[in-house]
Amino acid sequence: MTQKVDTTFKREAKRGSHDYKLACQVLDAGKICHCGFTVDDQPYVVPMAYARMDDQLLIHGSVASRLLTNLAEGLRCCVTTTHFDGLVYARSSFNSSINYRSVMVFGVARLVVDEDEKNDCMDALVDHLMPGRRADLRNSTRKELNATSMLKLPIEIFSVKSREGDPSDAKGDMDAPIWAGVVPLTTTAGEPIDSADLPTGIKRPGYL
Amino acid sequence: MTQKVDTTFKREAKRGSHDYKLACQVLDAGKICHCGFTVDDQPYVVPMAYARMDDQLLIHGSVASRLLTNLAEGLRCCVTTTHFDGLVYARSSFNSSINYRSVMVFGVARLVVDEDEKNDCMDALVDHLMPGRRADLRNSTRKELNATSMLKLPIEIFSVKSREGDPSDAKGDMDAPIWAGVVPLTTTAGEPIDSADLPTGIKRPGYL
Repeated sequence: MTQKVDTTFKREAKRGSHDYKLACQVLDAGKICHCGFTVDDQPYVVPMAYARMDDQLLIHGSVASRLLTNLAEGLRCCVTTTHFDGLVYARSSFNSSINYRSVMVFGVARLVVDEDEKNDCMDALVDHLMPGRRADLRNSTRKELNATSMLKLPIEIFSVKSREGDPSDAKGDMDAPIWAGVVPLTTTAGEPIDSADLPTGIKRPGYL
Repeated sequence: MTQKVDTTFKREAKRGSHDYKLACQVLDAGKICHCGFTVDDQPYVVPMAYARMDDQLLIHGSVASRLLTNLAEGLRCCVTTTHFDGLVYARSSFNSSINYRSVMVFGVARLVVDEDEKNDCMDALVDHLMPGRRADLRNSTRKELNATSMLKLPIEIFSVKSREGDPSDAKGDMDAPIWAGVVPLTTTAGEPIDSADLPTGIKRPGYL
């Protein structure tokens, strides 16, 4: 695809980067993305699980999915993942902000047709989304693979944006006798919940 | 705007809803959204802070922002917020899933021009993003308001999607001697970090 995407940073260029390693770091730290595509001039933004496999982003879903069908037909998309890292309490509404790390990947995804390749992609997804889990699971059946659309989006045209650290206040606000700083936010895993149909005697695995 | 958006649920209809109250609940539980729009056939998906004000979604940013400028000119958009609630460990890769709550709002946003209305919107954003904070902050100046683009997107055309609860495994997998269940995920606020330029003697407020 020819690069018609405008990924230049118009403003706050210090918050932007096109560094591939940094993009991979931010991508690898996430599990869900928001995938945007356009049908009949209407944009749609759909949440999806994803994984990175080398220089490709993997997204997948049912062959019956409208999103996957559209993307498989060569629609341009933008896949964005964002880590919401903190609330930035400045001394004014205007300078209050959010700390985050975000990657946008632009392009056209390719439908994975080859069964072995599809299988490898499924493995990469499970390894990324649920580390340690794959060794416990049976192989996917041909029927399951046939019911799955797997797409690879090359990490070629992308941009990274982030903000970190303290608020940036106006000089005139520095004497305000109010607290300023950052409230960090993190996503944490809670106590695993056994499935209601779990037979007694099956213990929680160490990888949870 | 005429409703040309297709918000019907093609599959897994049990996971979808057009209930307004439910949409508001999911929106009110979040602080950042992903806003999608299309320029020259290329979709862009940009993370943003948001708040709900009655039946309108508020998004805002610098008047220099490409995104805000595009939206203010009447480009259609899709604003999606997603809560990533848990990892669903099924007994196969195929049935492994994610628990989530998501709202997509479609439409054309309106640029808020009136200064009082813009001020009210700023207040609503601060109240939503940083509850309790507003009483500590000075009023926004005219210069700050003029430097801010504020957009209202009506919550009229929308869809809610979610998944919750246990994995749904195939009958043939129920004898697999492996754990199945859900690992819940939550976003939590950590210990506040004082700004490096915070004068000594200023304590953390109770609303943090």
